Amino acid sequence: MCDPHDLSRWEQEALCRGWVRRLARDLGPERDVVAPDIMTHASHMTWMLDEFEVMHGGRRPGAITGKPVPAGGTRGRREAAGYGLVYTLREALKEISLAPDRAVASVQGFGLVGRHAVELFTRIGGKVRSVSCLEQRSLEPTTFVRPEGIDLEELKDLADPFGNIDSERAAAAGYDVKDGNAWLAEPVDILIPAALENQINVGNCEQVARSVKLVVEGANGPTSEAAESALGERGVRVIPDLVANAGGVLCSYFEQVQAASNAYWRLAEVMSRLDVQLTDAYLEVSELAAGKDLSLRDAALVVGIDRVVSVTTDRGWV
Amino acid sequence: MCDPHDLSRWEQEALCRGWVRRLARDLGPERDVVAPDIMTHASHMTWMLDEFEVMHGGRRPGAITGKPVPAGGTRGRREAAGYGLVYTLREALKEISLAPDRAVASVQGFGLVGRHAVELFTRIGGKVRSVSCLEQRSLEPTTFVRPEGIDLEELKDLADPFGNIDSERAAAAGYDVKDGNAWLAEPVDILIPAALENQINVGNCEQVARSVKLVVEGANGPTSEAAESALGERGVRVIPDLVANAGGVLCSYFEQVQAASNAYWRLAEVMSRLDVQLTDAYLEVSELAAGKDLSLRDAALVVGIDRVVSVTTDRGWV
Amino acid sequence: MCDPHDLSRWEQEALCRGWVRRLARDLGPERDVVAPDIMTHASHMTWMLDEFEVMHGGRRPGAITGKPVPAGGTRGRREAAGYGLVYTLREALKEISLAPDRAVASVQGFGLVGRHAVELFTRIGGKVRSVSCLEQRSLEPTTFVRPEGIDLEELKDLADPFGNIDSERAAAAGYDVKDGNAWLAEPVDILIPAALENQINVGNCEQVARSVKLVVEGANGPTSEAAESALGERGVRVIPDLVANAGGVLCSYFEQVQAASNAYWRLAEVMSRLDVQLTDAYLEVSELAAGKDLSLRDAALVVGIDRVVSVTTDRGWV
Amino acid sequence: MCDPHDLSRWEQEALCRGWVRRLARDLGPERDVVAPDIMTHASHMTWMLDEFEVMHGGRRPGAITGKPVPAGGTRGRREAAGYGLVYTLREALKEISLAPDRAVASVQGFGLVGRHAVELFTRIGGKVRSVSCLEQRSLEPTTFVRPEGIDLEELKDLADPFGNIDSERAAAAGYDVKDGNAWLAEPVDILIPAALENQINVGNCEQVARSVKLVVEGANGPTSEAAESALGERGVRVIPDLVANAGGVLCSYFEQVQAASNAYWRLAEVMSRLDVQLTDAYLEVSELAAGKDLSLRDAALVVGIDRVVSVTTDRGWV
Amino acid sequence: MCDPHDLSRWEQEALCRGWVRRLARDLGPERDVVAPDIMTHASHMTWMLDEFEVMHGGRRPGAITGKPVPAGGTRGRREAAGYGLVYTLREALKEISLAPDRAVASVQGFGLVGRHAVELFTRIGGKVRSVSCLEQRSLEPTTFVRPEGIDLEELKDLADPFGNIDSERAAAAGYDVKDGNAWLAEPVDILIPAALENQINVGNCEQVARSVKLVVEGANGPTSEAAESALGERGVRVIPDLVANAGGVLCSYFEQVQAASNAYWRLAEVMSRLDVQLTDAYLEVSELAAGKDLSLRDAALVVGIDRVVSVTTDRGWV
Amino acid sequence: MCDPHDLSRWEQEALCRGWVRRLARDLGPERDVVAPDIMTHASHMTWMLDEFEVMHGGRRPGAITGKPVPAGGTRGRREAAGYGLVYTLREALKEISLAPDRAVASVQGFGLVGRHAVELFTRIGGKVRSVSCLEQRSLEPTTFVRPEGIDLEELKDLADPFGNIDSERAAAAGYDVKDGNAWLAEPVDILIPAALENQINVGNCEQVARSVKLVVEGANGPTSEAAESALGERGVRVIPDLVANAGGVLCSYFEQVQAASNAYWRLAEVMSRLDVQLTDAYLEVSELAAGKDLSLRDAALVVGIDRVVSVTTDRGWV
Repeated sequence: MCDPHDLSRWEQEALCRGWVRRLARDLGPERDVVAPDIMTHASHMTWMLDEFEVMHGGRRPGAITGKPVPAGGTRGRREAAGYGLVYTLREALKEISLAPDRAVASVQGFGLVGRHAVELFTRIGGKVRSVSCLEQRSLEPTTFVRPEGIDLEELKDLADPFGNIDSERAAAAGYDVKDGNAWLAEPVDILIPAALENQINVGNCEQVARSVKLVVEGANGPTSEAAESALGERGVRVIPDLVANAGGVLCSYFEQVQAASNAYWRLAEVMSRLDVQLTDAYLEVSELAAGKDLSLRDAALVVGIDRVVSVTTDRGWV
Repeated sequence: MCDPHDLSRWEQEALCRGWVRRLARDLGPERDVVAPDIMTHASHMTWMLDEFEVMHGGRRPGAITGKPVPAGGTRGRREAAGYGLVYTLREALKEISLAPDRAVASVQGFGLVGRHAVELFTRIGGKVRSVSCLEQRSLEPTTFVRPEGIDLEELKDLADPFGNIDSERAAAAGYDVKDGNAWLAEPVDILIPAALENQINVGNCEQVARSVKLVVEGANGPTSEAAESALGERGVRVIPDLVANAGGVLCSYFEQVQAASNAYWRLAEVMSRLDVQLTDAYLEVSELAAGKDLSLRDAALVVGIDRVVSVTTDRGWV
Repeated sequence: MCDPHDLSRWEQEALCRGWVRRLARDLGPERDVVAPDIMTHASHMTWMLDEFEVMHGGRRPGAITGKPVPAGGTRGRREAAGYGLVYTLREALKEISLAPDRAVASVQGFGLVGRHAVELFTRIGGKVRSVSCLEQRSLEPTTFVRPEGIDLEELKDLADPFGNIDSERAAAAGYDVKDGNAWLAEPVDILIPAALENQINVGNCEQVARSVKLVVEGANGPTSEAAESALGERGVRVIPDLVANAGGVLCSYFEQVQAASNAYWRLAEVMSRLDVQLTDAYLEVSELAAGKDLSLRDAALVVGIDRVVSVTTDRGWV
Repeated sequence: MCDPHDLSRWEQEALCRGWVRRLARDLGPERDVVAPDIMTHASHMTWMLDEFEVMHGGRRPGAITGKPVPAGGTRGRREAAGYGLVYTLREALKEISLAPDRAVASVQGFGLVGRHAVELFTRIGGKVRSVSCLEQRSLEPTTFVRPEGIDLEELKDLADPFGNIDSERAAAAGYDVKDGNAWLAEPVDILIPAALENQINVGNCEQVARSVKLVVEGANGPTSEAAESALGERGVRVIPDLVANAGGVLCSYFEQVQAASNAYWRLAEVMSRLDVQLTDAYLEVSELAAGKDLSLRDAALVVGIDRVVSVTTDRGWV
Repeated sequence: MCDPHDLSRWEQEALCRGWVRRLARDLGPERDVVAPDIMTHASHMTWMLDEFEVMHGGRRPGAITGKPVPAGGTRGRREAAGYGLVYTLREALKEISLAPDRAVASVQGFGLVGRHAVELFTRIGGKVRSVSCLEQRSLEPTTFVRPEGIDLEELKDLADPFGNIDSERAAAAGYDVKDGNAWLAEPVDILIPAALENQINVGNCEQVARSVKLVVEGANGPTSEAAESALGERGVRVIPDLVANAGGVLCSYFEQVQAASNAYWRLAEVMSRLDVQLTDAYLEVSELAAGKDLSLRDAALVVGIDRVVSVTTDRGWV
Repeated sequence: MCDPHDLSRWEQEALCRGWVRRLARDLGPERDVVAPDIMTHASHMTWMLDEFEVMHGGRRPGAITGKPVPAGGTRGRREAAGYGLVYTLREALKEISLAPDRAVASVQGFGLVGRHAVELFTRIGGKVRSVSCLEQRSLEPTTFVRPEGIDLEELKDLADPFGNIDSERAAAAGYDVKDGNAWLAEPVDILIPAALENQINVGNCEQVARSVKLVVEGANGPTSEAAESALGERGVRVIPDLVANAGGVLCSYFEQVQAASNAYWRLAEVMSRLDVQLTDAYLEVSELAAGKDLSLRDAALVVGIDRVVSVTTDRGWV
């Protein structure tokens, strides 16, 4: 309906407050908990909470999530999506008996998700061979490759605040600079598309290196249905977005849980709970996929639908 | 007032919902939390919750416990009573300095409680010499004995879905088949009556083997007052039902706690908390019994009454 | 307005209940949680809770803190202030690289705070050289010194129920008996004023031994502003009361958290959480003090003010 | 359970407030409205309201009736029972075609009900021949007769504050002084028993004068079942208490109605509404009695039961 | 979505209750008051109220209107539409200076609306020359004419319970029996279409007698837009349905008002208020129509829209 | 704190809404009903109501009074103060046996209050000899006199929209134009100061004509204490503002009553109720004044204080 870029700060605040005023009776931990989405930042959520609390006449931080930490938000929201992705990847590596310290990945995207995925994957022993993102001057998609593994801190230094890397300095630092699509043709075990949707599609999935065993979706919908199907026939497993990048929405859940008990967790506890939750989720999906010979995505959908069926049946609704 | 066996599924649902409609104002975590009892199964509780939530106009899973896990129930309800019994038994063994791996038990009952008690007792090193339950064909109480210790999985295989064991197959598997009362005359350290009430009474308590040091009540009221008194004079300690089989009602408590924080526990956490809670409870009772020279049952009642006295006095009610 | 010593038990109860009756609409976890202060004991809080619950029509233990444990209070309230003080002291010792087992302290006050500080400080290896408190007969401030370290249990035996020590028996037990001010001139590393306010002031701060490196405020406001300034110039760090003795108010917070989830913690968990919370708080303050060259007290105030600024800005109030 | 005469003013207040504290959730215009009964005076009701409003946190005068006028009570409570009785009597006189100014009555009781009945009956033209009440000195039931009609103001002057009449002064004023039972043998058209229950019974109903056509019950249950039956056979109509003395409970209803709209009525409006309500009620009962050949009491019960049947059937409860 | 004729009584009750269960949070005097419409009878409304009150936990009769009188409904619902129509007609006659006792009407429809319109119109002196309804045997529309005025009670006797008149008996009683359309060609001053929609249309409006000065819409939409326009050019005024037959919806309003004060009105009061309300409404519309040269229908819409504009502007919404 | 003249329409709206947001929990018919005061106009009240209803989540028009009629305000607010003044004047005239058609008044002020007082006083037969207000050009206080009585409609025509009269045109129309103070020296029976405070004071009360018998305060505090005392000694009765100009605040009360029952009154009903209420109030005050020999103002204060005493005593607060 409207683009926040066209709205002044005051218009944004008025819009957030007005939205809550209309819906307040249907919000709250017992009805609907609000979470941020694309283009919604922490200030928006704080305005929403403030309005909700004025109307409610008391503190109720669990109604609105995505708030900054001092306003009752959870720690770990920045790290959640990237780390969460690596938790599921770690479990998948166990299933294919590939030790992390022998695993090599190629990553598309150098934003919050990509960086934290690189960070944690590296920390558990993995090697990231290449990163694809926009080139700083040309703003063209570009792949930066270093066969012995990239260095995250070094790459961050080569990037501007928007995550675009300077190709000249990168070359000087020993990175091969290739075109934007090159990331999926690198001889790696794992592809991590963590940028935009539809990046692995019928047009380019043939280029995916034969060595690739896993695709871990850090972005929303980065693999087209047809490409997933073609990769599946080659034996490549795709860990679907609704498992692999669930870290963000789990943070909203964690934020509500912390508000419910009024006890706030340190970063380590957030990550530990995220790990447990995603590992359990991945294994439940993976076991069903193995047992029923389904793709991981289909298995995830079956798990979800089964829960809805179970609850509606138990309640006597159907 | 009515027997659920005489009611159709729809009548049962209507009864559950009607009960909640009448009482809704007095239910909920701040007033009264509902828990299942004999003949009340998980579907009943889910219907109750559904009705309560319709009336309340929002989610409030903590008001009704005993729900299935997908509807917000707790994990571990099946295991709770049997495992809980063994937690208290374990503490009692420490007090009499009998190592679990030297302890031998005889169990009456092969339902949920009995089986999980056998399972956990065996796992901590104990030996179960005999199990008493109904014989599959005759439906007569029968005791199955194997001096070197029964094998739980084997016995499960010999039982029908109602937990009744086939005596012929049991005999073939090397079990001595004795009459139903024989379980309490076996030369064991521990008796675990986990079937019906009044099973150890003045009529048979003389048959209890002289080796018995502990009776752990898995059923409700399995030991008559007179029998408990006679056993007490022989130095046998009876861990009373209100401690030994409190696992079920603690699960209801845990279910409400999980609902309050909207964070749900894995099975291991449930059992770990159950262990802490029951161990604390047992020790508090046991210490009082020792200090005041009371039976465990009397000590448990004193502890409970003291709490009521303390709170009513503190509040200025009396 | 009135002194509880002049009120009968019934007048005290009526006052507590009347206070809640007037304010009930503005109390509760979502608005204002009540905590005890000087002269307010556990009975007062229980009466308040009872009145609040009658008015509210249900259980709501989180609204009023400082209750006795059976009425929903937290464990550890007695120990919290003294132990908490030692948690911050321990961190400060690490910063100045003084191992606890080489550290010596002098304590003013032998009430709840002083005793528990002595207890925990001794347990982590520290030595308490002297304790200052009232003499039992004269009711004059007196310092009891034993260079090889005092013995807490022994001193407790020498004290009456009000914490006043018998100087004759103390002398007989090998303690040097000095005047009340002597405690701050002892050759120790740490001063722990845990009695009254304004005990280290311009009149006596010159007497503070040159060996002193830390003052840990167990009382409220025991160091005057001028004295703190003079000590600061000598390089003595003062851990301010709003960090060092925050254990009591944190207990009220913990009590509310336990009520929110209806799950109550064992003593060990209370202390473990207190340790985490105070350690985090101390380190945040200490790092800011180091970075900005502030006293610990100023740094603590800056941290607090920053939070208020951050939240009011985020909410759009300013 | 207790007799207010044995309770101090403070105990009475505590009892009233305590009763409301226990029941507050079930009181109020939407659930149950409280009304006074025998031995409950206006102060009791005001204390109840005050407690209810403290618990509710706002003004809610309609929850408790029987309050004094300045506290939100209705005007007319004193007059209601006596006047109401005359409204039904007036309608009954129309039915038997006896003009009020030709009608003569004999009244038992000289309290609030009796006096106001005399007052209004006289005002619409009727004559009261005799009044029976306690004699002032002997405290014996006594009947005071004046064939030409008593004078209410004069009799009030002859009575003490408890309504007991001085027989000597009455005789001097020209009243015949007879025994207490004499009131029902006077040659009148109407008997108005407005004192105690069971005053017209099988033992004395034969003495009722043959001229009597109507008995109007101002007291609760003044006519025994057998006496009513015997009188009925003689053609005497008994206007039953649940119609004739409903004025008091209607006042409680009016008080709640006034609270609901926050608009308070002058005395004339209260009486006008009372007249309408009682006239309608009497006529509905009388028509049914005529149509179905029932006594007025039976007809009143049928009307009431029919309403309950109608509502429970409409709601689908039966 | 469904036709109540196809539903059993139990299905109807379940449907009504289920509807309320879903919407309960948005119903009530402060949000939305429910009123009956076509095919919704009093039982439906009582079931709705019962469900609403169970969910609400108390009496709240004002939330649902259209209830039977014993369940808190208003008196006068049967009479409201027909009488209300005549109140507006009476005002319109004043405006054209036609005394009611010189006015003649022709009515289409012999249901609740038609009969009560005839009843009241006759009572204020008017004459009804003809009534059009279904013939009892043929079920064909038929007009029954008696130039000297019909007799309502007589016609009721000639009709079956569905309001269909027996033409043979009518003829015998002196009525001219004409075809169904004849009613609008009769030489009358007033047409009252009180049956179905679109009964006066371009196809037949030419037949409307030249003597007709007023059309009063008792049905919903009985006059087509084109017909109204044509009649308007001939100087015929059409009192539009949203004024003329507003009696029913006003009864719902009155029912809510009575519930709000818990004081219930006699039939005469209902009708008196209905008269005031409709007279005011008619005059406001009529004056605007005169002043702005609008049809009554357009004026009524302008009045309504003006109110919405005024309130939304005042509130600062636009 | 701020002057609405300095605020834009948007700032005024924000201020009104913000005020309600802070106080919403303490507003409403059960706690505090808001009414307008000087400088607060109908738009302010409508914004307040709108904000209150958003926060409350439903319609609650009775919480805020002074709204425009379409937004739920009461009719008659414009007329209330002036008419109300005349209701009390009428009763006072009866007491001094001066028929209205022989009474002559002099009025200060030609705003809402003055005009409506003149209108109604004239309508009941009285004559207004002079009106004092600002002169249109000079903006100087001026008195316009016509011994045979002023003509309200004529004077309105001579005034500009602010109520300032054109002296030239007034002179031309036959009015004597005198200085601003002249109004109180006119030979009248009644003075009606309806402009500003302190208009009859020690400086000018000697000029009050000897014929004056009544002063009716239409403004707030127009008579100084000393002047009232001096006039009282001359036998002049002052009907004090808190009775004479209570019409406005009674309108707020009426507005809340109408909201409570959701039934809105015609202008005539508002005025009729205002008359009853003010007449009752005046007579209660006047009777007390006569009985206790108090001024009307003192009597009014005694009546008010007595009510507070009575209620606080009844409730057991004192």
